[in-house]
Amino acid sequence: MMTELKELVWKANQDLFRAGLVILNFGNVSGLDRRRGIAAIKPSGVPYEELKPEDIVLVDLEGGVVEGGLKPSSDTPTHVELYKAFPAIGGIAHAHSEYATMFAQARREIPCYGTTHADFAQGPVPLTRQLTEAEAGGPYEQSTGRVIVERYVSAGLNPLVIPAVLIAGHGAFTWGRTAGEAVQAHVILEHVAKTAYGTLVLNPDQAPLEPYLLDKHLQRKHGPHAYYGQKKGETP
Amino acid sequence: MMTELKELVWKANQDLFRAGLVILNFGNVSGLDRRRGIAAIKPSGVPYEELKPEDIVLVDLEGGVVEGGLKPSSDTPTHVELYKAFPAIGGIAHAHSEYATMFAQARREIPCYGTTHADFAQGPVPLTRQLTEAEAGGPYEQSTGRVIVERYVSAGLNPLVIPAVLIAGHGAFTWGRTAGEAVQAHVILEHVAKTAYGTLVLNPDQAPLEPYLLDKHLQRKHGPHAYYGQKKGETP
Amino acid sequence: MMTELKELVWKANQDLFRAGLVILNFGNVSGLDRRRGIAAIKPSGVPYEELKPEDIVLVDLEGGVVEGGLKPSSDTPTHVELYKAFPAIGGIAHAHSEYATMFAQARREIPCYGTTHADFAQGPVPLTRQLTEAEAGGPYEQSTGRVIVERYVSAGLNPLVIPAVLIAGHGAFTWGRTAGEAVQAHVILEHVAKTAYGTLVLNPDQAPLEPYLLDKHLQRKHGPHAYYGQKKGETP
Amino acid sequence: MMTELKELVWKANQDLFRAGLVILNFGNVSGLDRRRGIAAIKPSGVPYEELKPEDIVLVDLEGGVVEGGLKPSSDTPTHVELYKAFPAIGGIAHAHSEYATMFAQARREIPCYGTTHADFAQGPVPLTRQLTEAEAGGPYEQSTGRVIVERYVSAGLNPLVIPAVLIAGHGAFTWGRTAGEAVQAHVILEHVAKTAYGTLVLNPDQAPLEPYLLDKHLQRKHGPHAYYGQKKGETP
Repeated sequence: MMTELKELVWKANQDLFRAGLVILNFGNVSGLDRRRGIAAIKPSGVPYEELKPEDIVLVDLEGGVVEGGLKPSSDTPTHVELYKAFPAIGGIAHAHSEYATMFAQARREIPCYGTTHADFAQGPVPLTRQLTEAEAGGPYEQSTGRVIVERYVSAGLNPLVIPAVLIAGHGAFTWGRTAGEAVQAHVILEHVAKTAYGTLVLNPDQAPLEPYLLDKHLQRKHGPHAYYGQKKGETP
Repeated sequence: MMTELKELVWKANQDLFRAGLVILNFGNVSGLDRRRGIAAIKPSGVPYEELKPEDIVLVDLEGGVVEGGLKPSSDTPTHVELYKAFPAIGGIAHAHSEYATMFAQARREIPCYGTTHADFAQGPVPLTRQLTEAEAGGPYEQSTGRVIVERYVSAGLNPLVIPAVLIAGHGAFTWGRTAGEAVQAHVILEHVAKTAYGTLVLNPDQAPLEPYLLDKHLQRKHGPHAYYGQKKGETP
Repeated sequence: MMTELKELVWKANQDLFRAGLVILNFGNVSGLDRRRGIAAIKPSGVPYEELKPEDIVLVDLEGGVVEGGLKPSSDTPTHVELYKAFPAIGGIAHAHSEYATMFAQARREIPCYGTTHADFAQGPVPLTRQLTEAEAGGPYEQSTGRVIVERYVSAGLNPLVIPAVLIAGHGAFTWGRTAGEAVQAHVILEHVAKTAYGTLVLNPDQAPLEPYLLDKHLQRKHGPHAYYGQKKGETP
Repeated sequence: MMTELKELVWKANQDLFRAGLVILNFGNVSGLDRRRGIAAIKPSGVPYEELKPEDIVLVDLEGGVVEGGLKPSSDTPTHVELYKAFPAIGGIAHAHSEYATMFAQARREIPCYGTTHADFAQGPVPLTRQLTEAEAGGPYEQSTGRVIVERYVSAGLNPLVIPAVLIAGHGAFTWGRTAGEAVQAHVILEHVAKTAYGTLVLNPDQAPLEPYLLDKHLQRKHGPHAYYGQKKGETP
C-alpha cells in the first residue's frame, strides 16, 4: 500500500544519510499523503545501509501504525504534531547535523547573515524553549512537536518561509512540501549554520543582513514575480 | 552552436560541484567567447547531477538568451557586468563556498597571510560594499556586478592579479582567462579563506605577509622572469 | 581458532578506519570471549588496508599471546585492565579521533549539552588524571588502564551508561558489549565532542542539559520501559 | 634510469594528494638515492591526476636536472638544501596543508599537547624565521632551505626526531628515510596541527605535555628498547 510514497520517503532518508547529516541510524524523514491522512516514516533504530523501501512504516495522524512490520521512528509523535499544525507541509526531516546542533545546544537562533540564508528562510532560524520537567516526563516526543508549534504560533512565524527550527539542547527539524524538499532544507540549514558559526567567529558583533535584502530574496524566490529557477516557486 | 564552449563550461560547473564548493544546485560558472561576444552559462536551478552540456545557455553581453531551452542562471547579469568591465577575463565562477562566505558575511576582506595567497592574489581579497536599498529594489544582479567593478576601479585594483572578490553578505566571484581557470581560482580562494580563518583564530593580531614577499610571488608567477610551472604564465 | 571473533574484530577495526576516526595505522579495537577469557586484538603497527582477519592476535587476560604470528597492539595492557575491571563489557575501541583528542589534550571533560550525548552517556565524558612520572616509567599502557578504572571507581561511574573516557593528553577509549558496539560508541563520541566544541565556541558559559532530560534519555534507551529501537536495549 | 625510485616518488606524491593535504597541483615530494647523489622529484605545475611515474624528474645535489623532459618543482632548491644538511634523511614532502599552514601563517610553533605528537616529534614543531628582503630577492627557494637548516642547527634540533618544520608565512616541510615516510609524517603533522588548534581553542593556556611523557614516547618508538610496531624502528 502506498508504495510510491514509501519509495520517496526511503529515498529522502538515504539522501539525508548520504549528505553527511546523520551518523549511524540517527535521524529520520517522513512524507505525508494529506488527502488520506497517512504518513510514511523511517522505522526506529534501523541502519540506513540496511533500510529498504518496504521497511518504511505507515502511520495515521494519531501516530498509530497503519502498515509495517517495524516500529516507526520514536520521533513519530513530533512529526504528527507538525503535520497537524502546519497544513501546507508534506515532508519533514529530523537530524542532529553538526552545526545546526551546535546552535541548538548553545541555545542560540541562527541569525541571517547572508543571501544563502535569505533565499532559504525569511529571518533567523528560530529556537524553541526547553521542555519543562513535566513535559519531559509525559509524552516527550509529542511535546517536542508542541513547543515547535508554540514557537511559530506565538511569534506569528510562517512555516512555509521559515522551513527549519532548532530544538533547545537537541537538534533540528526541517520541512517542505515533500520529503525530498525537507531533506534539501536540511542540507541548506547545515550550510547556513556552518557559515553563521564562522561569521560569528570572525565578527562576534556582526549585524544581520539588511531587512531590504531579506525581503528582496523572499520575493525573488517566493513572491508573485519570482524569477529564480526554471518555474515559479521551484525548489530550492 | 558553440558546442565546444558549452562543453568546457559544463565541465567547469561539474568541477565546481565536485570540489565541494557548492551544495544542491547553487553556484554557477560561465565562459566567454569574446570575439563573438557570447557567453555560455549554467541554467538556473538545475541540479549538477542532472546537468548536461546541451543545457548550457548561450547569452549575449546584454544578458539576452541567444540559444538554449532553459533560463540562464539568475546571476547572469552579474557575469555580464564583469565581462564588460574586465576585458582580460574569459571565465567566471560564483559560489557560496563555506569559508569565503564566512568572510563575506562577516564583511571582512581576506588578508594575505602566506605564500599560497601571494601566489594567487596580489593583496587582500577585496570586499564590495553592501548594495543600497535602491540597488536591491532595481536590477539586483546587475548591481552586484556594478559594485564589484566599482570596488576594483575605485581602488585601482587589477582584476588579473586579484582574481577573486567577496560580495558583502553574499558569497564570492572568481575569474580567469577561461571557465576552468575561474573554478581553479575558487578552489584556491576557499583554501586561502580557510587558512586565513584559522590564522586569525590562532593570532587575531597577525600582520599580513611582508610586502617584499608578496611582490616576490607576483613576479615568480606573473612577472617577466616567471619560473613557476612548465611554461611562463601557466595556471595556476 | 576463534575465527568468528577474529572476523568480528577485524571488521570492527575496518569500521573504525572507514569512519575517519584514525589515520595511518593508529588506533585499535578488541573483542572479548569472556567465557574463555581470550581477547582478539589488532596487531601493532599494521596498516588497516593490509590487515586481514587472520592477522588478528589472540591474547589472554594477562596480556600473553595465545595465538598469532604478529605482536598485539602496544595498547593491549590497557584493554586487558578494562576487561578485568568492567565485567559487563565485551569490546573496546581506542583512537585519537580529532575532537575527542582536542578535549583530552585540553584536559577538559565533554559536558553533556544535548540529547545526542544524553542518549549515549549518562553525564559528562570523564577525563582521567595524567599519569605520574613513576607510572610513565613503569608498565605504561597498563597504568593507562588503571587510571581509567580509578576514574570510574572513585566517582562511582557505571561504565555501561558512560561508555567513553578521555585520557589526559592522549585520546579516548570507548566500549560496549561487542567490538562493533565499541566502534559505534567511538563514532558517537566524536560527534558529541565536535558539537560540544562548537557549542563552547558559540556560548562559552553554556550550562549542561537539564538533569531531568538526561534522565529521560537514559530511561528511553536503557530503562525498564525503554522504547527506542526495534527491541529493548537495542544499540545504539 | 632509476625507475624504481621514480615509481616510489610518484606513489608518494599520489599519496600526498589522496590524503587531502594538497589542492590542484600544489605540493611536492622527493626521494633521494644518497649513494648516487641523485634525487627524484615532482615536476613543476603538473596536476596529480595527470602525473605519471616517467614524469618524475631526476636532479643532482646542485639542483641540476640529470634526467627528465619537464622542469623540476620550483621548490627543488629547498629539497636540495635539506638533503645536504641532514644526512640521515632520504625523502621530503612539502605541502600547504590546512592546519599546519594556519600555524605557519600565525607564526606559532605547534606545541606538543599529547601522545600523538610525542610519538611523532620530540618537542614542538619548530617555526623558521621569515626570510629577509635580501633573501627573498636572491635564490628564494634555496634560502627557504637555509632558514630551515639554520633553525635546526642553532637550536641543536635533531631532524630525525623532529621530522617536520613550519616555514613562517608559507607552509610545512616533512621528511623521513624515504619519500613514503615523508608523506606519512605530513599526514601526522596535519592531524597534530588540527588537534593542537582545537586544544588552544578549548584552553588557550594549556601547558605542553609533561616532559617525562614526551621522553617515554620517544623511547617507546625510537629508543634502544623500542616496542611499538612489528619491528624495532618500524614507521610510524
